[in-house]
Amino acid sequence: MKIYDVEGFPNPARVRIALAEKGVQDKVEFIPVDVMGGEHRTEAFRQKNPDAVVPCLELEDGSHISQCNAITEYIDGTYSDGPTLTGETPKERAHISMMNLRAENGLLNAVSNYFHHATEGLGPDLEVYQNEDWGLKQKEVATKTMAYLDEVLGENAYVAGDTFSMADITVFAGLAFADFAKIDIPANLTNLTAWREKVSSRPSIAA
Amino acid sequence: MKIYDVEGFPNPARVRIALAEKGVQDKVEFIPVDVMGGEHRTEAFRQKNPDAVVPCLELEDGSHISQCNAITEYIDGTYSDGPTLTGETPKERAHISMMNLRAENGLLNAVSNYFHHATEGLGPDLEVYQNEDWGLKQKEVATKTMAYLDEVLGENAYVAGDTFSMADITVFAGLAFADFAKIDIPANLTNLTAWREKVSSRPSIAA
Ligand SMILES: N[C@@H](CCC(=O)N[C@@H](CS)C(=O)NCC(=O)O)C(=O)O
Ligand SMILES: N[C@@H](CCC(=O)N[C@@H](CS)C(=O)NCC(=O)O)C(=O)O
Repeated sequence: MKIYDVEGFPNPARVRIALAEKGVQDKVEFIPVDVMGGEHRTEAFRQKNPDAVVPCLELEDGSHISQCNAITEYIDGTYSDGPTLTGETPKERAHISMMNLRAENGLLNAVSNYFHHATEGLGPDLEVYQNEDWGLKQKEVATKTMAYLDEVLGENAYVAGDTFSMADITVFAGLAFADFAKIDIPANLTNLTAWREKVSSRPSIAA
Repeated sequence: MKIYDVEGFPNPARVRIALAEKGVQDKVEFIPVDVMGGEHRTEAFRQKNPDAVVPCLELEDGSHISQCNAITEYIDGTYSDGPTLTGETPKERAHISMMNLRAENGLLNAVSNYFHHATEGLGPDLEVYQNEDWGLKQKEVATKTMAYLDEVLGENAYVAGDTFSMADITVFAGLAFADFAKIDIPANLTNLTAWREKVSSRPSIAA
């Protein structure tokens, strides 16, 4: 399979961590997309991914899967090595899905909205619509979600319970994006920072 | 199990349709939440669902699952009667998940953002932050997504391929919300309106 992405960008990082957790990075050919040059908004790329974002997975049959959640679902369902990232029982699956959505909407996407709307973002050529007030509001959402996750991590070892899952990957990527966008993790959120240190040492992330 | 919701609201409708597709409505006790009176924002409700929205599922063990996607995942995984709503193979699951996210972000949530930000929404007591310009932009997103879905439905019988899935439920609820928010379906989107008529006659929706 092929993945169209940009190394180091937060959403692509989610899929790369998922692949490393399953030990299947070597099954993927990574194809760099010139996001800064606007390649992801060309008609040719939109044929692959109408959402005009990276990452995008291309399967052997030529079909495409975009959205990190969907790509992770595919990888986790296809490769049985490594930990389950999406859960085994219906209850586990639902709990992971819920926590992952909270992390995605409340942290990663909120940080992204702040970055694209209330800072220079990817620069004037790409940021064709900016709404600063909305961006600043989303920064508040991100900070509130950090406090919520800190509470959760005071009770559980991981974001969706006792074991590592895709919800942890989403939070990790969200915090990395927050660093980049200069949104601080409040110093009193010690559960969140301790969890971050712990997951940072996983081979899928440290490598 | 119990579901806290408001009958007739768009997100609760998604879960009620999913239950009807699986034929298990009678396994659920519905508990009305006074959203117009702000009950969903009380500390007591936030204990159940920190997202402070409906619907919210309560399992027999007292734990809670919120987010329609996660609730649908639970229902579909737990009850084997009726069609699969989330897919069987990893590829099907990923494709449904992707199309469902496109429908949710691009249509249902975009309409919701228009409604809450650029109209009176739920009224001044509940709409404590409004950003009209953002809301109007999201209306454009909703209309573009309708055009995208029309293309998809020109090629496939359903939103995520040959069979009905949770992605169809999300589009159906998104269009119902669009009606309510007075966002028209452009008259030239004949595939989308034909699909809507077809799914409207399913017992889970028509009943
Ligand atoms: N929800 C999407 C988000 C993807 C996304 O926003 N990717 C960013 C890179 S981290 C992108 O392509 N941005 C391009 C742009 O903003 O124009 C997913 O899960 O894949
Ligand atoms: N993404 C959520 C959305 C839930 C949602 O927004 N529900 C609406 C009712 S349709 C709500 O509770 N709104 C209350 C409010 O806006 O204060 C889900 O999938 O459940």
